[in-house]
Amino acid sequence: MRSALCWACLSHQPIEGAGTRRGRALKSRPPPEAEAALGQWERSWASTGGPVAPPAQSPAGPAKGVAATMAEADIALIGLAVMGQNLILNMNDHGFVVCAFNRTVSKVDAFLANEAKGTKVIGAHSLQEMVSKLKKPRRIILLVKAGSAVDDFIKSLVPLLEAGDIIIDGGNSEYRDTTRRCKELREKGILFVGSGVSGGEEGARYGPSLMPGGDKEAWPHIKKIFQSIAAKVNTGEPCCDWVGEEGAGHFVKMVHNGIEYGDMQLICEAYHLMKDVLGMEQDEMAMVFGEWNKTELDSFLIEITANIFKFRDSDGKHLLPKIKDSAGQKGTGKWTAISALEYGVPVTLIGEAVFARCLSSLKDERVQASKRLDGPKRTQFSGNKKAFLEDIRKALYASKIISYAQGFMLLRQAAKEFGWTINYGGIALMWRGGCIIRSAFLGKIKDAFDRNPDLQNLLLDDFFKKAVEDCQDSWRRVISTGVQIGIPMPCFTTALSFYDGYRHEMLPANLIQAQRDYFGAHTYELLSKPGEFIHTNWTGHGGNVSSSSYNA
Amino acid sequence: MRSALCWACLSHQPIEGAGTRRGRALKSRPPPEAEAALGQWERSWASTGGPVAPPAQSPAGPAKGVAATMAEADIALIGLAVMGQNLILNMNDHGFVVCAFNRTVSKVDAFLANEAKGTKVIGAHSLQEMVSKLKKPRRIILLVKAGSAVDDFIKSLVPLLEAGDIIIDGGNSEYRDTTRRCKELREKGILFVGSGVSGGEEGARYGPSLMPGGDKEAWPHIKKIFQSIAAKVNTGEPCCDWVGEEGAGHFVKMVHNGIEYGDMQLICEAYHLMKDVLGMEQDEMAMVFGEWNKTELDSFLIEITANIFKFRDSDGKHLLPKIKDSAGQKGTGKWTAISALEYGVPVTLIGEAVFARCLSSLKDERVQASKRLDGPKRTQFSGNKKAFLEDIRKALYASKIISYAQGFMLLRQAAKEFGWTINYGGIALMWRGGCIIRSAFLGKIKDAFDRNPDLQNLLLDDFFKKAVEDCQDSWRRVISTGVQIGIPMPCFTTALSFYDGYRHEMLPANLIQAQRDYFGAHTYELLSKPGEFIHTNWTGHGGNVSSSSYNA
Repeated sequence: MRSALCWACLSHQPIEGAGTRRGRALKSRPPPEAEAALGQWERSWASTGGPVAPPAQSPAGPAKGVAATMAEADIALIGLAVMGQNLILNMNDHGFVVCAFNRTVSKVDAFLANEAKGTKVIGAHSLQEMVSKLKKPRRIILLVKAGSAVDDFIKSLVPLLEAGDIIIDGGNSEYRDTTRRCKELREKGILFVGSGVSGGEEGARYGPSLMPGGDKEAWPHIKKIFQSIAAKVNTGEPCCDWVGEEGAGHFVKMVHNGIEYGDMQLICEAYHLMKDVLGMEQDEMAMVFGEWNKTELDSFLIEITANIFKFRDSDGKHLLPKIKDSAGQKGTGKWTAISALEYGVPVTLIGEAVFARCLSSLKDERVQASKRLDGPKRTQFSGNKKAFLEDIRKALYASKIISYAQGFMLLRQAAKEFGWTINYGGIALMWRGGCIIRSAFLGKIKDAFDRNPDLQNLLLDDFFKKAVEDCQDSWRRVISTGVQIGIPMPCFTTALSFYDGYRHEMLPANLIQAQRDYFGAHTYELLSKPGEFIHTNWTGHGGNVSSSSYNA
Repeated sequence: MRSALCWACLSHQPIEGAGTRRGRALKSRPPPEAEAALGQWERSWASTGGPVAPPAQSPAGPAKGVAATMAEADIALIGLAVMGQNLILNMNDHGFVVCAFNRTVSKVDAFLANEAKGTKVIGAHSLQEMVSKLKKPRRIILLVKAGSAVDDFIKSLVPLLEAGDIIIDGGNSEYRDTTRRCKELREKGILFVGSGVSGGEEGARYGPSLMPGGDKEAWPHIKKIFQSIAAKVNTGEPCCDWVGEEGAGHFVKMVHNGIEYGDMQLICEAYHLMKDVLGMEQDEMAMVFGEWNKTELDSFLIEITANIFKFRDSDGKHLLPKIKDSAGQKGTGKWTAISALEYGVPVTLIGEAVFARCLSSLKDERVQASKRLDGPKRTQFSGNKKAFLEDIRKALYASKIISYAQGFMLLRQAAKEFGWTINYGGIALMWRGGCIIRSAFLGKIKDAFDRNPDLQNLLLDDFFKKAVEDCQDSWRRVISTGVQIGIPMPCFTTALSFYDGYRHEMLPANLIQAQRDYFGAHTYELLSKPGEFIHTNWTGHGGNVSSSSYNA
């Protein structure tokens, strides 16, 4: 029997019954009495705390200074694409009155007449009307295309709002834009929040991972709504907490997406080794991924990978091998790698994962090159297949630990760079459910930060230190074998290089410093005299000391 | 006997004699009659074509419309730091009359009274005076700090110039700034050139690598000066040619610097393996690098590495092991990696080289981690040391080929992105001498583009295809051994992953496409139906098709 992972709580659910209630298929939530019949799926929902009855008092408090008949909505949402619609329905389920607005106003009426029919959702045909229907402080979520559309709506909204009102950008904005908007609106007395939203349409509907950051004064006014609609982990904790100042919420969302690129590429490298070193078939790989999902690798992406391997096309053949091996991308992985470069943090695994997609997209060139360039002579595997499979699993797990360690290094550096106070354990919890990288593993990261909130690096935590050490022999065997047989493993290998570099007290970079001083008089430090920068006349024929030298 | 590489022609020169004539030590060129006594060094200079007698007619043609007594200078240079001074003296040596200017005007007088004493260099105490002394079309080189200083000088100069005059930015400007300035000045009728200048102070003085791009109408007016002062290869060809439109010159200079980061990191990885796997001593490594410099690896960086290994501190001990292993960087390597990400080109090796410097700079954290994190049990090398040394050399060579292949991929993509026409063979020639990455190897790249100017990828050229194939067994052995022993080799491994990925017709990225379609309805292509994008309902319970989905 096939099973699916519950978006809200990560427990495995039978697809039957749940099936028709997912994504677009479920436009509005069935009344509570209908829910009891839904068996296990319902129990899982119940355990997450949702749906809740409308609170006795509106979470926003009573309306002030506006006729009660007018100011009826707890929150407004602008942007009625599927994500926006689903987020509204989610809020409605949790007892909040939402006012819907869309630039193309006909969409508001269509939404009220269809998807939102029978709910408490109200609509507005102008921003003025929308604002007039909101309780104070007014809360307005923008779910529109990142970029100028966000600025345009802010510009139109500001004259309609008053001090203390709150604008929330739930789109995929660049974190620097969010920081800018935060500062601009702060000057006008408006509180701005930039919130990462992950989990796609299903997440938006039944429990996304929410990563709000910005003006912290806004948080008490939106916390209840955000934490109610967010995904819940199995202990009932919401996958939403306050991330940090300015663009911190969008920065964390960006790093989430970068990590997602890494996770996906690691799975691909395991797949490549299974297919081309061990010669495994689709169903066998499906079974292995299904098994792996019961181990430390338990996660949404491993689960869907098993399902993908199983999936057969209408002709009865497996679909996966028919799909073109050119990966697309929308940019957030790239942004993460660029930020890593900008802030000088060695987030090598996400960088390689982004580049791996770039290389995959050069399909025509690769086809040509495959006919020209020879690989190694040895292409057969001669070892124990079962043992090697376990080696691959451990290589994947160890590499994944490195990737998350690097991701958290980037968050730490950004916090330093921008003066943000970031709750690292909270981020692990936010990613624990609702989003694409959700996994049991993130619970372990949360535990590590609970044990030591000042943990400098995940690898220095006892649990992860031991986990990597337990995996390392396997990891090295896999890479060694893959290298001999000619399988590209950019993420497995960069992860190991990072681990081996990170645990080296002495790296060969002293030679780089000597070279830079030799040709460009860039100076160097002596190990024995930290903080003192020295130039040596290496050639004996005239120095090059200069701060204007052009190479570095 | 120690030898040094001649900056201008790449031939090996005894340090004695040449010594006092290099860098800052030589402030003005001795009169021609003194030169004959300089032996081998002089012969090398002579073979480069310099110094030349002043041309019978000024290269700029006779002055028009300005009193001949006033308009005496062929070119002006603004910015009298050491690079600027040396470039002026270099132009003077080649018969051009240069007018020197500096924001702090006292520096002009000091320069004329000291370094430029006895030359034909003239000075100016204001921009007005400087401009009045220039023959038309006026040619003005800016050698000031990149950024606003360049814009400020342009702003001050424009009202003093007329249509057809030429401003050349020889600083380390970002290529996008150069493109912007090109367009802005074009509207005013002023021709703008952004030129990469590499080779440091010695290069500026005796033969830099020059990479001019921008408004091509300027080229006939500056070609003679630029090619006269540039480094020459042993056939006499100048390491300077027209690069391409807009910011192409600065873009090429940026990629040069990125490749330099890669070359340096590759040498470090070889050093690390020699030191920690083979247990070699400094003098032994010096000898090996000296030997390598007689092979395909013949280059400035290999040469100075041998010298660095030999170098002893005043206490008689080797200096290198005393230097702190935290590499600095000034940003151009990082810019290259960021451009690679922006334009979607898998320039993985430069990316890893930049990240390796970042990791090296986390010295305190590494010291701490080295006490906590275990490496592999096996740390001893049991094979044939001499054979392994040759394996390392081949691993370095193969990785270097990959790095340059990736660098040229980035140039090609930038050309496409910006509509530039770029002369790839010309770039190889420009880098062949004068700059930090100068090497015999670049001559081979020049040959490859001579054989096929449309060569899509260096790896598809017969010479480089065979070179990599000849190296690959060694390359794989080195990585396999290093991985088992625990040596970080981020650039050796990423290069191999790229090679193995590039030569694979089928990569596992079909799984990424399936995953993206599964959780985000991003659609995929079938191998059998290129150009047609399909969504599959993978779960059987409601699709997710949407262009607004938030993860990729």
